[in-house]
Amino acid sequence: MEELATALGRNIRQKRKEKGFSQDAFALATGIDRSYIGRIERGEVNITVEKLYEIAAVLQCEPASLLPAQTTL
Amino acid sequence: MEELATALGRNIRQKRKEKGFSQDAFALATGIDRSYIGRIERGEVNITVEKLYEIAAVLQCEPASLLPAQTTL
Repeated sequence: MEELATALGRNIRQKRKEKGFSQDAFALATGIDRSYIGRIERGEVNITVEKLYEIAAVLQCEPASLLPAQTTL
Repeated sequence: MEELATALGRNIRQKRKEKGFSQDAFALATGIDRSYIGRIERGEVNITVEKLYEIAAVLQCEPASLLPAQTTL
């Protein structure tokens, strides 16, 4: 399901920019390594649901809102 | 975030029963080991987003619908 990671990463990147975070500021706020943030956003890693919640908490959005619809994959 | 895994596991178990799957049948359909299904449903493991999609596909529901709201955790 490489498409899933790609679509999820795209959604996270879009929301991060919407909220005005640079990758550096986002790394600091989430406590996730900056290079790992890059890998998430490029869909190179398959994150855990827990990590999704940590990201959503910083982005002040519901975790579910970051998930691509199954039907679009 | 132990509460997250617990709440997510509860939602998965509820939907599995709703759809009429025994744990055995669900294990067979998802290709996930039966004992691991038990651990997921008891909130003992932190699954990946990809695994969530595999589970939702078998349960014929949107992955997002299985996620507990952040505000309820």
